[in-house]
Parts: sequence; C-alpha cells; structure tokens
Amino acid sequence: MMIIMKAGATPQEVEAVIAQIKSMGLAVHLSQGVEATIIGAIGETHAIPIERFEGLDGVELVQRITQPYKLASRQFHPEDSVIPLSNFAVGGNEIAIIAGPCSVESRSQIIETAIAVKEAGASALRGGVFKPRTSPYAFQGLGEEGLELLAEAREKTGLPIVVEIMSQVQLDLMLKYVDVFQVGARNMQNFNLLRAIGETRTAVLLKRGLSATIEELLMSAEYILAGGNTRVMLCERGIRTFETSTRNTTDINAIPVLKNLTHLPVILDPSHSTGHADYVAAIARAGIAAGADGLIIEVHPDPAKAVSDGKQSLRPEKFAQMVHQAGQIAQIMGRRLASTQGSAQPLKQGWA
Amino acid sequence: MMIIMKAGATPQEVEAVIAQIKSMGLAVHLSQGVEATIIGAIGETHAIPIERFEGLDGVELVQRITQPYKLASRQFHPEDSVIPLSNFAVGGNEIAIIAGPCSVESRSQIIETAIAVKEAGASALRGGVFKPRTSPYAFQGLGEEGLELLAEAREKTGLPIVVEIMSQVQLDLMLKYVDVFQVGARNMQNFNLLRAIGETRTAVLLKRGLSATIEELLMSAEYILAGGNTRVMLCERGIRTFETSTRNTTDINAIPVLKNLTHLPVILDPSHSTGHADYVAAIARAGIAAGADGLIIEVHPDPAKAVSDGKQSLRPEKFAQMVHQAGQIAQIMGRRLASTQGSAQPLKQGWA
Amino acid sequence: MMIIMKAGATPQEVEAVIAQIKSMGLAVHLSQGVEATIIGAIGETHAIPIERFEGLDGVELVQRITQPYKLASRQFHPEDSVIPLSNFAVGGNEIAIIAGPCSVESRSQIIETAIAVKEAGASALRGGVFKPRTSPYAFQGLGEEGLELLAEAREKTGLPIVVEIMSQVQLDLMLKYVDVFQVGARNMQNFNLLRAIGETRTAVLLKRGLSATIEELLMSAEYILAGGNTRVMLCERGIRTFETSTRNTTDINAIPVLKNLTHLPVILDPSHSTGHADYVAAIARAGIAAGADGLIIEVHPDPAKAVSDGKQSLRPEKFAQMVHQAGQIAQIMGRRLASTQGSAQPLKQGWA
Amino acid sequence: MMIIMKAGATPQEVEAVIAQIKSMGLAVHLSQGVEATIIGAIGETHAIPIERFEGLDGVELVQRITQPYKLASRQFHPEDSVIPLSNFAVGGNEIAIIAGPCSVESRSQIIETAIAVKEAGASALRGGVFKPRTSPYAFQGLGEEGLELLAEAREKTGLPIVVEIMSQVQLDLMLKYVDVFQVGARNMQNFNLLRAIGETRTAVLLKRGLSATIEELLMSAEYILAGGNTRVMLCERGIRTFETSTRNTTDINAIPVLKNLTHLPVILDPSHSTGHADYVAAIARAGIAAGADGLIIEVHPDPAKAVSDGKQSLRPEKFAQMVHQAGQIAQIMGRRLASTQGSAQPLKQGWA
Repeated sequence: MMIIMKAGATPQEVEAVIAQIKSMGLAVHLSQGVEATIIGAIGETHAIPIERFEGLDGVELVQRITQPYKLASRQFHPEDSVIPLSNFAVGGNEIAIIAGPCSVESRSQIIETAIAVKEAGASALRGGVFKPRTSPYAFQGLGEEGLELLAEAREKTGLPIVVEIMSQVQLDLMLKYVDVFQVGARNMQNFNLLRAIGETRTAVLLKRGLSATIEELLMSAEYILAGGNTRVMLCERGIRTFETSTRNTTDINAIPVLKNLTHLPVILDPSHSTGHADYVAAIARAGIAAGADGLIIEVHPDPAKAVSDGKQSLRPEKFAQMVHQAGQIAQIMGRRLASTQGSAQPLKQGWA
Repeated sequence: MMIIMKAGATPQEVEAVIAQIKSMGLAVHLSQGVEATIIGAIGETHAIPIERFEGLDGVELVQRITQPYKLASRQFHPEDSVIPLSNFAVGGNEIAIIAGPCSVESRSQIIETAIAVKEAGASALRGGVFKPRTSPYAFQGLGEEGLELLAEAREKTGLPIVVEIMSQVQLDLMLKYVDVFQVGARNMQNFNLLRAIGETRTAVLLKRGLSATIEELLMSAEYILAGGNTRVMLCERGIRTFETSTRNTTDINAIPVLKNLTHLPVILDPSHSTGHADYVAAIARAGIAAGADGLIIEVHPDPAKAVSDGKQSLRPEKFAQMVHQAGQIAQIMGRRLASTQGSAQPLKQGWA
Repeated sequence: MMIIMKAGATPQEVEAVIAQIKSMGLAVHLSQGVEATIIGAIGETHAIPIERFEGLDGVELVQRITQPYKLASRQFHPEDSVIPLSNFAVGGNEIAIIAGPCSVESRSQIIETAIAVKEAGASALRGGVFKPRTSPYAFQGLGEEGLELLAEAREKTGLPIVVEIMSQVQLDLMLKYVDVFQVGARNMQNFNLLRAIGETRTAVLLKRGLSATIEELLMSAEYILAGGNTRVMLCERGIRTFETSTRNTTDINAIPVLKNLTHLPVILDPSHSTGHADYVAAIARAGIAAGADGLIIEVHPDPAKAVSDGKQSLRPEKFAQMVHQAGQIAQIMGRRLASTQGSAQPLKQGWA
Repeated sequence: MMIIMKAGATPQEVEAVIAQIKSMGLAVHLSQGVEATIIGAIGETHAIPIERFEGLDGVELVQRITQPYKLASRQFHPEDSVIPLSNFAVGGNEIAIIAGPCSVESRSQIIETAIAVKEAGASALRGGVFKPRTSPYAFQGLGEEGLELLAEAREKTGLPIVVEIMSQVQLDLMLKYVDVFQVGARNMQNFNLLRAIGETRTAVLLKRGLSATIEELLMSAEYILAGGNTRVMLCERGIRTFETSTRNTTDINAIPVLKNLTHLPVILDPSHSTGHADYVAAIARAGIAAGADGLIIEVHPDPAKAVSDGKQSLRPEKFAQMVHQAGQIAQIMGRRLASTQGSAQPLKQGWA
C-alpha cells in the first residue's frame, strides 16, 4: 500500500502516517521525491482498509498495490479451484449447466421441469423457495414445502439442487436439503449471511450484486472463504446501468477479469443478465466463449403461467437447443458439458 | 395497469391476457385501436407484479399507471407524516440533525462526541456497533458493549440514539437499547430484516441502496409499513455512478421527487453521499434548500484516528459551523432546526 | 403513441391533447377507462418527439408503441442489410475483421501492420489520422499525411481502409481516401457530421456513444440513412458504468438486441470495450458467439511504443491467434471469416 | 506521475520505463521497495497521457499525482476567475441567472420571454437556434433567423445572449451575434469545436457531457483555455445514471468539487438536470446553497406549446418565484443576484 502525501505535507504529518503504519505491524518504505513524498506500507496489507490512512492529515491519496483480498486471489492459489458436486465438478474441464424455474410452484411443475432439464443436458437443478421480491405483495415462495419438492425432484433425476438462501435464520432448515446455497444479488453484502455460510461446508453460488464491483464480489467471497468454506462459485448475473432495453447489462468482461484475478469458478446467468428469453441463448454462448465455467438458466414448462420471471424463462425445448449450442462452443474451447444426453446436431445460422 | 399487445397478437392471446386479469380479481377495459390493442387491468393493481403479464404470449409491453406501492404513497396519505422522536418530531416544521461517529469505538469517544454534537445543535446521536464492512478483516463493531455505551451517552445528553441493524437475529437485543433502527444501504432489500422491523413499533431510518431506484426504496418502505410500523424515515445517501471524484453521487433530485411521491420524511446523508469532509457542509446546505426534513452526519473528535470513515467525518467545530449554516437555510425555508444551542452568527462567503 | 392522462385531468385538457394530435396530421383513438383516459395517436408517429405531449397539462405519461426510428428498423426492412466493401461484404454470411493501429504513426508502422494483419486474416485496415484526444496536449494525429500512408498500405495489401472522421470540415479531404468513415463514440450525436455523411455514399462505421442507449444509437443511424446513405454499420465499443476493472463495460446484450431491432450489421470493438490486451481475445470470441457480424481490433507491431492505446493493442501474433479462434466460433455459427489465410490449428483450453 | 512495476518486473523492463520517461524530457525518481518498484516521472506531466506508460511491459499501474490539466486548475490560478459579461460579471460576488426558451420559435415568443425573464430578475437570455435533436425528424431550429430575433430581444432588454453552437462551421455566423457560446453536453468532446472556440475571445458556457467525469470536463475546458480564450464557464446539467424518475441525475457534488479543483465559474442547469418543471426550483435553490455561481433555466410563455423541452420549462411567473428564492439563498451565502427587480417577499414552507 502506498500513501502519497500532499505537496505541502509537513514533516509532522509524514511522521503521523509512519506511526500509523508501524502501529499496524507493517514495515515502512519512505521515498521523498521532488514532487511528492510516498510512503510504502509493507506486509499483510490486504487486511488493512485504505480508509485508515485516507483520514490522516496531509494525505493526498492511498493506493493499493496488492489486492484487498487474499484467499480468493490467484496469487494465493494459482491453480483453478475445482469444486466437486454430486457426480461432476465445477471449475475444471467440465461446463456446469444449472437449470430450473425461478420459483418452485407445485409438485408437478418442479418434477416436470427437473426431468425436462435433465433430458436436455442440465447437470444441476435450481429452484427458489424463499423469494426476495421487490414488492411485499408478490409471491414469497413455498418455504419448506418447496424444499421437500426439490428433494423429491433430486431423487427422481439425480440432479443436485441449488437453492437461494435469504437469511442466516434459514440456514439450519436449508442445510438439511440443499446441495448448493445460492446467495442472491441483493444479499451479496449481507455479511452476517456470508459468515454463517462460511461456517458450513456446503457449496455456494455467490451472485454479484446489481452494482457491485468485481473487487467487492471477491471481498464477499473472502468472507465465506475466511470461515473455512472453500467451495465457492462466483456468478455474473448482470449489472445495473443506464441501458433499459434489457433488464440488466451482462458484464461479459467480468468473466476473463475474474478468471485472471481468482481461482474460483465463474458461472454466468444469462436469464437475469438479459431479462428476456429471446436473448438468453446468444448470451449463454457468449459466456462459454468468454471462458465461463458454467451457466445458470431459468426454465419453466409454461413461462406464461410462471409466478415469477416468466419473461426470461426458457421453455424446455428452447433450453435443449441452448444446451446444444453451449456444448458446441465448449468443444471449441477444449471443454465439454458436465452431462449431455442429446446427439450433436449441426447448428444453423440465425440463432437469436 | 395497461397491457399493450403486439401488432400481430392473435385473438387467443388477447383472451389469455383477459383471463389472467380476471383470475386476479381485477376488472378489464379493452381498447382495440388501429395500431394496437390495449387491455386495461383495473383494481388493486399495486399488488400485482407486471411480470405476471410480461411472460404472456403476444404481449408487447406492460405499463403501470398507478404506483406499485400503496401505504407509502402520497395518494394514500396526502398529509406529511410526522414522526415523534424523543422531544422533537421528524417530518414537520423541524429539521432533524442526527450526528455521531461511524463506529462506537470507546466510552470516551462516544460520550465526548455525544456532548459535542449536542452542543453544536444535534437532535439525535448516531453510532454503529455492528458494522457492515466490505472486508472480513476490517473492524466489525463493538456489539452489545457499544449499545451500552450509546445508552450511557443518551442518558448524559438526552439525545435519542440511531443505530444500524444488520440482521433480524440482532433485533431482540437492539430493541432493548435503540430509539431508531437504521437500515443500511446494503440491507435495503434484505426483506427478512424489513419484515421483522415492520413487526416492531420502533422508528426506522431506511437508507436507499447504492443502486436502488427511488421506486425500489419506496417498495422497501412498503414492506415495513405493511407490518404496521408507520414510523419510517427515508434516507438519500448517494448512489453509485461512473463519477469517481466523490465516493458516491448525491442524488439531490431524490429529495423533491420523494417529497412528491410519498408522505414519509426524507433525510439526507451528505457524509456518505460525498465521502469527503470538505464537501459535507455544501451538500448539507443543498439538502435543506431542496426540502429535506433532516440530515445525518458523521462526526468524530479526531477523524485521523477513526477506525472507519475518517475521511468523511467532521470534527465537532466544523460540524457546529455546518449546523449553523443549515439553520440559516432552514429559516429561509420557513423551518427551524429541531434543537439549536448556538447564536446566529453571520455567515461569510467562501464556505467549501 | 399513447398519451395517458392524469386521474383528475379535465375534459379541456383531454381536448387540448386531441387537438395537438390532429394538428400533427395523426388520427386519434380515445379510450376512457375507469382509472385512466388513454388517447392513442395513430400514424407516422416515429417522427413525433414525445416531448410534444409531455408538456401538456393533465398528461401523466406518454408511451411510444412503435419505434422513434423508421429506416433503421427491422419492421421497415426485414432482411439483413449486406454492405459490399471491396472484395467482401458485411452483414451476410461473412465475418468482417477490421484491424490496425489506433493511430497512424509512420510509414513503416502502418505498412508493417497492414501486411501483418492481412496475413493474420484481417479483411480491412483501420488507422486514425485525426485523433479525438481527451487532452489538448496529446498527439492529435498525422492528418492528410496519415491518409496518404493508409492509401499506400491499401495499395500494398488490397485491404479497404477505415478511418475516423471528427468533423464535417474534414469530409472533402477524407472522401478522396477512405473506404469507410468511422464515427467515434464522442461524435455519435454530432448531428451536423451525421447529416454530412448521410449526403455521401461512402460506407460508415457508427460507434455507440459512451453512455448512449441502443435506441439513441439507432436514432443516430437514422440521421445518416435519412440522407440516403444506406451503407451504415453499427459498432458496440463498450459503455461507461461504475465498474473500473476494465476501461469500459462491453454491452454484449447489445448484439442480439440490435440484431432484433435493426437490419444493419453489428460490429464489436473488444479493444475499446475492455481496454486491455489480455481480455480482447475472450471478448472477441464472445462477440462472434453472440451473433456479431464482425470485429474491429487494435493491433500494433510494438504496443509499448504506440503513441496511443498501447495497453489495449494486440501484437500481430496475438492477433493471429485471436482471428483463428474467431474463425472457429464463426464456423459453429454457420459463418466464416471474410478472409483468412492461416490453416485451422486446434485450439487448447486456457485462453485468457 | 508514478509508474508502479509488477512484482516480477525485470531490470530491463524497469530500464525501458526509465528511458521512456527521459525521452519525454522528464526527470526520474526511482524507489525500489520490498513489495514494488515505483518510478516517479517528474516535470510537466500534465501533458503526458498515462497510456504512454500503461502499454509498457512489466507495468502494474500508472498513477497521476498532479492533474492532467493545468490552465484550468486552481493550483495554476488560485483566485476565482471573474468573467465580465455585459453589465455584470460571472464568478465573483454576483449570481448569474440565464433564462429563456429551449428553442427560439418566433419573434413574439422570444421577445415576450426576454421581457418576462428580465422583469423576473434574469441577467442573461438563452435561446437555441441550431438544435441538437436525437431524432432527425424533430425541429432543428430557426438558424440565422433565430439569431436575428435574439439580437432584437437583446436590444429591447439589454440582456446578453447565450446561444448553443453545434459545429465550427457555424462559428463565423454566430460570432456576429452572440455574447456567450454554449457548448452542449453532446459536444463536450467535439475537440474541433473546442479548438475553434479557443481561438475566439467570446465567452463560452461549457456543459458537462451526459457521462463525462469532472476531470474530463476540465480537460475540455483546457482545450479552450489552451487557445487563449480564458472566458470559460462550466455547467453541470445532470449526468446519466440508472435512475429513471428524473431525466438526468443532478450531480450536486460536482459544484463543491469543481470549486475546489478549478478557478472557473460553475453554473447549474436544473432544467436539464431534472427534466421536470416541478423540480426545477428545489434544485435551483440547492445549487446556490452548494456554491454555484449561477443558474441557467428554461422558461417559456406557454410550455404546452413549446416545440422542445416543454415538460421542463417554467412559466414566467414560476420563474419569478424561483429567482426570488434563489436570491434569498444567495444572500445567506453572502452573495446577491446579478440583477433583481422584485422586492424581497417572505417565503413560505411548501415549495416543490
């Protein structure tokens, strides 16, 4: 970490910064140039918030050289993390395809969907039972009944289940059922929840917040990793920008940036990142081509009847096409889908 | 709510929309124009998510006419809500000044600050004991010990205390101490927390999320109001934009927009919305001039030593100046500070 | 276009809106529902700004049903536009690869680069001679000398040349040299320039502004098309968001959205949309997978010595790899590169 | 400027950076710490783009210490610039009020408006004659005829006229008429236009681009100043964000930030920054309270009939109220309106 002093900083102000650095157990490297005095703080600086220096008198700016996270960084763990999940693994050569409805609505809906996505090549089943809804008047999920239905669908299909957790008070209940916790965008900085999940050893899919930077996403992963839970997958699900023609803006750059900064697997959610069924396949292909380790896709047997996210949900047959396309791109990338059933039909031009 | 059908929508698709509307207990108004068929859904539409129609075949777009919230709206409650708090009230003629440190750090720090802000004209004391920190390695707050220190400061000064709550598991503990719950920006859509607070009758200061729209802020207020807790104050604390010269961008427009849309009091937090002590006073004045019902300000006896937010904290003497300026603007606006001690010294040009 | 009146709008206010619609030569469709009066304006509404109604008394909101552009829309021209360019065409089955340095710096630099990108499979050469620089102190381009060097490079390689135009005063000079005008992001709403180009019959690559919506990009294309110049290609080059880990945020969603809304070809510029050479190849692949009709890439023989954009420029050998990968994805998409030289070597996992 | 090398940078890479610095006529300050090698480049670094170093091998990041602009900076010119304009001056003790219609529409409209705004206390008249319209089908302005009408209005009222220029080809014509050039948001980085204006000695109101940073605004001012034209006023007119309840987001922070960074006067445009007549007065007051040197306001005798921007235009009587309020806030700030006619009536609570 470098602390750059203002042009007119006094020797006393420089001394105060040096004292602050030393009091934190860090070493000091002082460089007094013509234009500026620069003070380096050397040691385990990832754990030091830059604000501890920004408030000091005479400080112009504080610049990190190393990342503010450690366990999540590629420097700390150069090899890709590979997270075993049921009968496949995320983060290695296999591309994970997680699919299912936004909300679990009924027994027939979730069982039917689970079978359909399995047949289309999905490797895991998603489904929400506690729903974070903007409106207090909207459907809030089936709760434990939904978890039981998901468990039944898992039994029928062999697909591990990925379920959103909204609060640490749901933890004990959910631990009995789920294979992967999903932490939603709105909870990416619910630090109590992150800590609680860090204490478990259950895998977690951590979604990027609507306006979270990539660095903040990695800091939130660090909360979970710091608890000893290393089974963390990151998920890009679109960010909020000024553009309104899509629900969110897919930050496709985030995929190669994350693969560069961290060893954790990176999943793309084109359903939320576009908000529109017509665009999901194109962005799913783009995600695999950019290097994503998997996709999470909303699928509903009858999107028009979905209680939530119908507009962005694929029908099973559209999903099957999308999986097929993803598989072809994966092959070009030297990878393969974690599980596929269909044969490789040739693709034609004109995909949406 | 209006559902606008695509140019080529079939009669069957129109019928399906009509059936959906009726199944929700709403009335239908059908208008078949030359360019478009428009279907109106009439009744208690605030409780209907537009996504229930967006996924239907043949639908071009869905447009709300009425707001998606009800209890928070000015239509529902035309008069300004006035929220009594200790010996003053927020939302009426008085301007509330809430001040104190980002974090409670020690007994001397909080007591000293409480006395100083009281003297400078503050009407309430803020102080964090559970801190939502981006980094797991940063100071996380004193917890219950901090609450006890705040209670002692309240006893010494008579100032009601405003404390951030991060999780519903902290609710019972905090209820014993706090006068006002603060819900932070990162928890604005922590719906479990909002519901839990809605069940209490303790006042709450609900901060706008970093990238939350004004409508989403009001929807979150609706969660609390729907539980029967009507003592809700809204807080603009800056939004995330592309501009990096300040920590956040103060959305000053939000003040008149909120005063137009809702009856709830609106507080401005110029400490977070600027992130820099040098800009706090200018933006505090702007907030009062724009019609805010109060300010929440970070004050620390020695910002250079603050464990958090030192850069944006005012020293007590700077805070006293700011209160004085705010009081002068308030007078122009036909209002007055909830509590002031100092005399009215004339202001000079050249405030930062 | 629909004009939705406020709940309490008077009959006089409704009449004023109707009169306004009729005065514009449009037909009126009046629908008086229980909750709202809706007035439809029917006819050539794309040419009517909604602001002509927003200022009227009693108006709640104005909603377009049809697009505000016509010539650029797919409704008007359902088939993809195919733009012949030298010995290939953009917008059909072939993927265009436009490559070259940010700035033309010297004869040897541009000739060397032209030969290298041709060998690597590029179908056109880019190079700036008038540079829009944020700083008045930065290199502003070689001007006409640069155009002559580009013409020489074209002669040597057969590659058509794509050059940025910054002002209509440069038009006559540039017409003598260039095959494709590039309109940069900062000039996307320089309407005088757009009109002037619309009067020519030279092809144009219109880049999306830093914070322009997709609709605004299409409106700017409409300016050129309205002048009778139909040879317009659109270019996504990244938008400005809060994320700072990349120079811009690639709006990959824009590719399928544009292919849906317009018949014009869509090119992706991953050099500017990422700002970092390490991420260009991943995003180039993603662009082709998402359905882009081409790529524009910054290539420099020695990026460390580039006078501009060195950080995001590829070395020729990295560019050749990227072209190869793009070609493989193109094949999967049922397309092929407009011109390739190299043989198809198998790709390996681990691309950045 | 500091160049921070990557942890593993080789001595050759360090040497290459040093050579690059020296070749630019700058001095070198080398600091080899334990964690990082930092190379300072010392001298007139404001004229050096950081990209000249970012592309070099082994470079981790490049950090400016001094600003990239010079003539616009407060370091260079510590005193506030005061720009005389007709019978008053902008940037000193007086608050400028520039008012008038978006577009000049007719003789009666502009003369009537000029007289009304003069009476209400305006110090200058605005009016557009070349209009930058998003749609090619929208009204594009009266051109020279409009300039003649503005000149007539000036003659009748004594108000100097402020007119938007869209292209350097309009320069000679406009020089014959206007007192102040306005450079619109879409042209903030039309560098050819900025240079051309820099060659004149006519005052200029430079509006911030829709998504321009404060630093970029100052760089654009530098283009004009570098030509020798020192009569530059800056204008905050709202930035583009995710919030849709207002047309733009007023970046009120920009006012104290600009007053800190530059000596140039800062004007606020609450008409564009809110886009809604109901919010203009509140934000105008906020602007003066935050330290702005003036306001520019859209006023129309009959907003419902305005050909552009009717929704955000004030009627003359509303404008008069707003001027009155601005005057009261100005007084508190130790300043006064450049010209006022009305007497000081007491204000009441309940302004919008």
